[in-house]
Amino acid sequence: MALTPARTMPGVLELLPLDQIAFQRMLDTIRRNYERFGFLPIETPVIEYSDVLLTKTGGETERQVYFVQSTGSLGAAEKGEVPELALRFDLTVPLARYVAEHEHDLSFPFRRYQMQRVYRGERAQRGRFREFYQCDIDVIGKDSLSVRYDAEIPAVIYSVFRELNIGAFTIHLNNRKLMRGYFENLGIADATQQMLVLREVDKLDKRGPDYVRDTLTGDAFGLAADVADKILAFVQVRSTSVDDAFAKLDALGAGSEAFEQGRAELKEVLAMIRDFGVPETHFALNLSIARGLDYYTGTVYETTLNEHPGIGSICSGGRYENLAGQYTKSHLPGVGISIGLTRLYWQLRDAGLVSTAQSTVDVLVTQMDAAQMPTYLAVASELRSAGIATEVVLDGGKLGKQFKYADRAGIRFVVVLGEDEIAKGVVTVKDLRREDQFEVPRADLVKTLRVELAQAEIGR
Amino acid sequence: MALTPARTMPGVLELLPLDQIAFQRMLDTIRRNYERFGFLPIETPVIEYSDVLLTKTGGETERQVYFVQSTGSLGAAEKGEVPELALRFDLTVPLARYVAEHEHDLSFPFRRYQMQRVYRGERAQRGRFREFYQCDIDVIGKDSLSVRYDAEIPAVIYSVFRELNIGAFTIHLNNRKLMRGYFENLGIADATQQMLVLREVDKLDKRGPDYVRDTLTGDAFGLAADVADKILAFVQVRSTSVDDAFAKLDALGAGSEAFEQGRAELKEVLAMIRDFGVPETHFALNLSIARGLDYYTGTVYETTLNEHPGIGSICSGGRYENLAGQYTKSHLPGVGISIGLTRLYWQLRDAGLVSTAQSTVDVLVTQMDAAQMPTYLAVASELRSAGIATEVVLDGGKLGKQFKYADRAGIRFVVVLGEDEIAKGVVTVKDLRREDQFEVPRADLVKTLRVELAQAEIGR
Repeated sequence: MALTPARTMPGVLELLPLDQIAFQRMLDTIRRNYERFGFLPIETPVIEYSDVLLTKTGGETERQVYFVQSTGSLGAAEKGEVPELALRFDLTVPLARYVAEHEHDLSFPFRRYQMQRVYRGERAQRGRFREFYQCDIDVIGKDSLSVRYDAEIPAVIYSVFRELNIGAFTIHLNNRKLMRGYFENLGIADATQQMLVLREVDKLDKRGPDYVRDTLTGDAFGLAADVADKILAFVQVRSTSVDDAFAKLDALGAGSEAFEQGRAELKEVLAMIRDFGVPETHFALNLSIARGLDYYTGTVYETTLNEHPGIGSICSGGRYENLAGQYTKSHLPGVGISIGLTRLYWQLRDAGLVSTAQSTVDVLVTQMDAAQMPTYLAVASELRSAGIATEVVLDGGKLGKQFKYADRAGIRFVVVLGEDEIAKGVVTVKDLRREDQFEVPRADLVKTLRVELAQAEIGR
Repeated sequence: MALTPARTMPGVLELLPLDQIAFQRMLDTIRRNYERFGFLPIETPVIEYSDVLLTKTGGETERQVYFVQSTGSLGAAEKGEVPELALRFDLTVPLARYVAEHEHDLSFPFRRYQMQRVYRGERAQRGRFREFYQCDIDVIGKDSLSVRYDAEIPAVIYSVFRELNIGAFTIHLNNRKLMRGYFENLGIADATQQMLVLREVDKLDKRGPDYVRDTLTGDAFGLAADVADKILAFVQVRSTSVDDAFAKLDALGAGSEAFEQGRAELKEVLAMIRDFGVPETHFALNLSIARGLDYYTGTVYETTLNEHPGIGSICSGGRYENLAGQYTKSHLPGVGISIGLTRLYWQLRDAGLVSTAQSTVDVLVTQMDAAQMPTYLAVASELRSAGIATEVVLDGGKLGKQFKYADRAGIRFVVVLGEDEIAKGVVTVKDLRREDQFEVPRADLVKTLRVELAQAEIGR
């Protein structure tokens, strides 16, 4: 029989076990922090009805949807119909569907976290993923939701990224009402026009202020020179502290109702983030943050690594006016963020910021003599009962080969029980990380390894 | 705008948050035990190439596959071709592909666990799932793999189900070589014929021995009466201890080479399971276990709940001769099992064996006075730093409503900090589970709640 080449499609990240462990540790850290702030888990099916998934979206997203058909229904596509089922492309649409469907069984404000994979039929390209994890939190209110929840979100982000330990980071905040109001003041009232201007302004870092000013005052936009200058000054506002943010917000002068509401919200949110215990070094007003989606209506967030600006935002989101208008008449305002963990992990690994993990296996019990197997198994049982992950060599083979296996597999401790050791009632432990070995009475083995592993945990 | 009804397709299990927590705890328990035995995590993409996924399968499985097409490639199906991509229908085929693809980066024996969802286009029917979790472990050898690994698997099963705490269970063992040899001895040499006989014998419990004997000796099978009796006697063999199993295996008399090899393997495996510390009450020889798949070649396992035989096998698997022959020339024997957790959870809930969990949120900090918000946030920070999951009421509203929210959301402790409490330097804690309340100095709050929660953890 001819062999089928074993391969996966482009745009998926499949990891070797030790990398998978590193990835899993990041997932666990995110989950632990989400739970610590009182968010509840949900999971939704990967497959949704196409009409449910595609109510809101247009153009770009729809072109990237993966449709699903069971063998029996493959014929339907021949008629040129859109298949009935599709894979979710984010976790927000499924959340909206979930909340609308289970509205009467949920308590509001509904605080949910969801960490699952999503699917996009992207063109194959380095750093573009067709399957990737999103780790989302959202707080959904019924009828209303205090702006105070907008301040809680950065507290969660701070807690997550501090514990992920991937270097200094900054949470950038802006407010869509403030932006909208400011642009309206300048005579740019149309939302599409505002977005086009912002897209142009986004080129500031790459092309420089002169280029952007020329474009804005050129034929395409036709803005007056002083308007262009005001826009450039606005989007360059960054704060260094809460007090500095207040001063810079005040310096913007008076504005429309939307503008004033945005300013008041930003002030309340910034002051309260500090009350949440987030150090002022880790969040800042940044009036260039817009978030592409029309979806957001108030506070918006982006988070960047100070030493790795090239990675871009590692966690983004914001406040929206109504989550599930396409499914229910209930008014459900919310605020949330998303961490695209697959891409983040890939970028961090690329930048050398995460490395292959040690094995989840703590101890390998070697096999010197098959006749002693019951002893090896008993030792392994004792270790496992104490929560120490233990593998026993059952196949046998030369001891050197067994050590090599442990080393290659990233297992730190190797336990040797030969005739000598059994006679003396001791165990030889080889610490492959420290390249050290020691003898310990059999009765003290569990205690000794527990101490060693606890120290390693602290040092990690 | 007309509303789109919020709904999911039949055959998926979507849970409310407190049920999701119960489900997640089961997943965590399984993972913890898999890791304790030294299995390493892998995850594979949900979408695989159709040719990779469908090399081995025929008929039934292929009819249940979900094919995947991105918007751009929907046309391809019109030509009547099988779409290029499909959703995995189990974790074994992806494992085979993974091992073949990464063979040179893996250490053998390769011990992997994988807990992900799989997809089958089943007909909609109560208890049939189109999306469900499988929680698999496998040990894969290169060229060879000691039968001792067959004894380790029941040790893992025992450890998992003991900790899942869902009642008494029995791990049933048989060996395909023993069965095959026994049938050959009786003149039933054809594998298909053996399977047909076994399928008939499977009706024993429902139809009784007379019905089955009549069928076997009837036109369809044409077996001699003494052959039918021997088969019925064989499949009714159950052991009550390892010694009893040995005696019953010996009582089967001499047989072919395959038969003798199967008997020797079973004896080695049964004796060693005891060495692994599995109580003899929890595993047994059961010569009726066949496993439908042609895939298995040696030891086979099923696990049943003693008090709920109707649930059927909750964990099954066995030894196979070659994992990935369709992708690689390497000879990769293995042994493994699978827990279909979605169905199991659903059945256990149905039988009242798992209940809705308490919330993952331990404490709700109420809001008496918005002006005291910094104090509430500080208390919450202290609790979270101590690993206590804490939610703060940010929206406000009447205290009674806040209590009601906590109660409905399954949050056990409610913290109240009014004017009085703040003046006295204390906190009032309401324990909603015990319907009790007490006052504690603010400085002792963390310590007190930690003790309460640790006790609850022990009692769980």
